[in-house]
Amino acid sequence: MSAYKEMWEKLNLDIPAHDGLLAVLGKFYGDIYLSQQGRLKGMEYLDFVLSEVHGLRVKELQDAKAQGRKVIGTFCVFVPEELTLAADAVHVGLCAGADAGTEQAEKLVPRNTCALIKSFIGFKLARLCPYTESCDMVVGETTCDGKKKAYEAFAEHVNMHVMELPQTKSESARALFRAEVLRYTSELERLTGVTITPERLAAATKVVNDKRRALQRLSRLRAADPAPISGRDALLINQVSFYDDPVRFTQSVNALCDEMEARIAKGEGIAPAGTVRLMLSGCPMAVPNWKLPYVMEGSGAVIVGEESCIGTRNTRDLVDESPADMDGMIDALVDRYMRIDCACFTPNTERLDNVVDMAKELKADGVVHYALMFCQPYAHEAMKVEGALRAEGIPMLAMETDYSMEDVEQLKTRVQAFVEMVR
Amino acid sequence: MSAYKEMWEKLNLDIPAHDGLLAVLGKFYGDIYLSQQGRLKGMEYLDFVLSEVHGLRVKELQDAKAQGRKVIGTFCVFVPEELTLAADAVHVGLCAGADAGTEQAEKLVPRNTCALIKSFIGFKLARLCPYTESCDMVVGETTCDGKKKAYEAFAEHVNMHVMELPQTKSESARALFRAEVLRYTSELERLTGVTITPERLAAATKVVNDKRRALQRLSRLRAADPAPISGRDALLINQVSFYDDPVRFTQSVNALCDEMEARIAKGEGIAPAGTVRLMLSGCPMAVPNWKLPYVMEGSGAVIVGEESCIGTRNTRDLVDESPADMDGMIDALVDRYMRIDCACFTPNTERLDNVVDMAKELKADGVVHYALMFCQPYAHEAMKVEGALRAEGIPMLAMETDYSMEDVEQLKTRVQAFVEMVR
Ligand code: SF4
Ligand code: SF4
Ligand code: SF4
Ligand code: SF4
Repeated sequence: MSAYKEMWEKLNLDIPAHDGLLAVLGKFYGDIYLSQQGRLKGMEYLDFVLSEVHGLRVKELQDAKAQGRKVIGTFCVFVPEELTLAADAVHVGLCAGADAGTEQAEKLVPRNTCALIKSFIGFKLARLCPYTESCDMVVGETTCDGKKKAYEAFAEHVNMHVMELPQTKSESARALFRAEVLRYTSELERLTGVTITPERLAAATKVVNDKRRALQRLSRLRAADPAPISGRDALLINQVSFYDDPVRFTQSVNALCDEMEARIAKGEGIAPAGTVRLMLSGCPMAVPNWKLPYVMEGSGAVIVGEESCIGTRNTRDLVDESPADMDGMIDALVDRYMRIDCACFTPNTERLDNVVDMAKELKADGVVHYALMFCQPYAHEAMKVEGALRAEGIPMLAMETDYSMEDVEQLKTRVQAFVEMVR
Repeated sequence: MSAYKEMWEKLNLDIPAHDGLLAVLGKFYGDIYLSQQGRLKGMEYLDFVLSEVHGLRVKELQDAKAQGRKVIGTFCVFVPEELTLAADAVHVGLCAGADAGTEQAEKLVPRNTCALIKSFIGFKLARLCPYTESCDMVVGETTCDGKKKAYEAFAEHVNMHVMELPQTKSESARALFRAEVLRYTSELERLTGVTITPERLAAATKVVNDKRRALQRLSRLRAADPAPISGRDALLINQVSFYDDPVRFTQSVNALCDEMEARIAKGEGIAPAGTVRLMLSGCPMAVPNWKLPYVMEGSGAVIVGEESCIGTRNTRDLVDESPADMDGMIDALVDRYMRIDCACFTPNTERLDNVVDMAKELKADGVVHYALMFCQPYAHEAMKVEGALRAEGIPMLAMETDYSMEDVEQLKTRVQAFVEMVR
C-alpha cells in the first residue's frame, strides 16, 4: 500500500501510526473475513474495496477534488445523500469503529462517551483517517447528546455544518426538519457552486434509491434457509455502502444477489440448514467493528439481518420518485427521512414494530440487541425491544460493549449460552 | 407528622418506606442546615416549609384539588409556569435529589442514567413522593437523552404530556417551541376547563416575574463580602421556589432580602470577610441533594452563587410584560424561554459568557462545576466552561458525582485542595 504514501502525507496523516492501523486492520480482516468457508464469489469485490479502503477509494476522492468536486463527510443516515449527490459532491460516512486515538479524544469529550464518537474524534486528533482529512465539509446533526455536544468540539478541527433534527414526528417537527433540509441545500450550493435543479435531484434520488433497492434485495434473500450469506459479509456490504461509489456499489450488490439467488435455488448456503439464525438490532457498527458478529458466528449461529443504521434502518424506505417539481421532491425526501426509526426520537414505537416484523420475516430464532456503552437512546430502547419481542415469543439477548477486545471472552460465554437456549 | 398519615394513605404512599425517608431527611437537614451558625432569621420560614415539605404543602395541594384546581408536575425550567398559573393550576417541580427506589428505577431505565432521573422514577415506583402522586398531569420535555427516553417509560405510570424543545436557537427552532407552547396551552385549557385569556396570562406572568425578581435580588446581594447568606441556605430557597406557593414565597424572599441588606449595611455576614468565595455551576441540585454544598462549606469556603436551573438559570431572565394581546404575550414568553442557556442546546456559548460574568459579579475566587454522573450535556460543557474561566484567570474544579454518600470523603479531599489553591 506504500504506493499511496505520498497521498497520505499530503493528507497530513501520521504515517507510522497509520501504517500500524492498517497492519492491525489487515490482520483482523484476515482472521474474521478471509477465514470464512464457502463465501460468495461476489465478495471478492468487497474484499478488494476493503483492502483498498485507505488507498484506491481515497485516491478517487482526491481525483474528484482535483476536478473541483467537493467531499462531504457525515455521521448519520439523516443527512440526505440525495442532496449531496445532486450538488455533484461525494458523500462519505465517517463513523469509525476502531479503538484508536482514545486518549486524545478524551481531552475533547468526556470519558462517558460512546466508542463511536470517541473513535471519530480520536481518528481526527491522531491523524489516522484519510476520509476525514479529505472532507471539504463535515455535516453533523442533533441526534444524541453525545454527538450533538461532540460536534461543538469537533468544529474546532474541521469545517462543520450541523443540521438540527427534531425529536418527535409532529407536524412542527417535520417543518423544522424541512427547513433544515433547505438550509443544507443552500449550504451545498454555496460550497460547490452547483445549483440543485429538479433534474439533478431526480437523478441523484434515483441513484440513492437504486442503492437502497439493491440492499433491500440482499436483505430479502437472507430469509432463505440455509442462509446464503454470512452476517459478517452482509454487514461489510452495508459498511462499504457508506463510502464506495454508489453506482458501482449498486452493480456489485446486484451481481452478488444474482449469485445468492442461484445458490438458494440449489439449496446451498454459507451454513447448514437448521443453523441457529440470529438477528442483530441496535447501534450502528462502523468499520472495523466486527467484534460481536464474529463472536456470534463463531458460536455456531448465522446472522440473518441487521436492524441498525448500518443495515435496514438506512435502506428500508425509498424516496417517492414521482414528484417532478422541487417543492414536491423536497417533500418526498422529507417524508422518507422522517420515517427513520432512530432511538433519538420520542416516542419511537415504529421501531418495535419494525424489529418484530423483521425477525419474523427473516425467521430469526432470536435477536441480539447491541448498544454501545454510554449510548442512552439505545440502552433505553433495548428494554422496550425486549418486551416487544417477548410478546411474540422471540428471545432477546441485550449486549452492551465498546470497541476494546477485553470483553471478547465474556461476550462469547453469553452468546454461546443464548445460542444454546434458542436452538 | 403523623397528622398527615391519612392523606399519605389516600395518596397511596408506601407508609413505612415514606416514614423512613422522612426520618433520614430530618436528620440530614439537622446536620446540614440547623447546625449552621449566625443564620438569617428569615430562614425560619424555609425551615418550616422544609419540615412540612411532605405535609402542609401537600395538604394545600389536596385542598386546591378539592376546589377543582389541577396540579401539574414538571422536571425542567422550560415548562412555562406562567401558563400553568394562568389556567389556575398549581405548578410543582418533581426533580428529586435522593437515592431512593434506585433498584426499582433500574428496571425501567438503564443503569447508566443520571441520579436525578433514577430518583424521580424511583420515587414513583417506590411510592415515596406525595407531589408526584398529587399530579393531574406531568409535563416532560425533550431535553437530554436520559429524560427524553425515561419519559416514555414514566408515561406507563403517570399521565404525561411531553413538550418538544428544539436543540438550537434558530428561527425554525423558535417556531417549533412556539407551536409547543401553544399545544401546552391547549392541553392545560382542556385539563382545567379554564380559558387562558390575556388578562389571566398577564396576571400569572407578573406573579412568576415577581418571584424571579425576588430571587434576582437575593442573587445580587450575595456579591457582598462578607457573604450575607450561606450557599446552602440560598440553594434551599431556590429549591423551595419549585413547589411553594409563588406569592407567599416571593414575600418571604423579599423579607429575607431586607434582612440581608441590613446585615450587609452593618458589615456582617455568615462567614468572616475574606473567606474563600466559590461559585457552583452545572446540573440542577434537587431537594435533598445538599452533599456538595455541604462539603464545600465544610471546607472553609462560602458559596456565593449557583449557576444552574435550581439557581440563576431559572431566574436570570424575565418575560416582557408590555404586550397586551395574546400573540404578543406568547411571543414575549417564547423569547424569554429561548434565552435559557441549558447544555442541551448546541451551540450554547451564551452559558460561557453567563458563567464568567456571574463569577466576576459575585467576586468568586473559583468555580466548582458539578455534573451528575452520566449527564453528557453538562460533562461536555464542563470542559468548555473550564476553558472560558481559565481565559479570565478564574480556576475551576470539575466534579462528577451522584446521590450516594460513598464519595463524600473523596469529594472533601478534592474540594479542600481546591480551596487551598484559590485562597
Ligand atoms: S442511530 Fe440515529 S443518530 Fe445514529 S446514525 Fe442512525 S439515525 Fe443517526
Ligand atoms: S451509538 Fe448512541 S451514543 Fe453513540 S453516536 Fe450513536 S446514538 Fe449516539
Ligand atoms: S438543565 Fe436543562 S434540561 Fe435540566 S432542568 Fe435545566 S433547562 Fe431543563
Ligand atoms: S442532570 Fe443531565 S442527564 Fe440528568 S436529567 Fe439533567 S440534563 Fe439530563
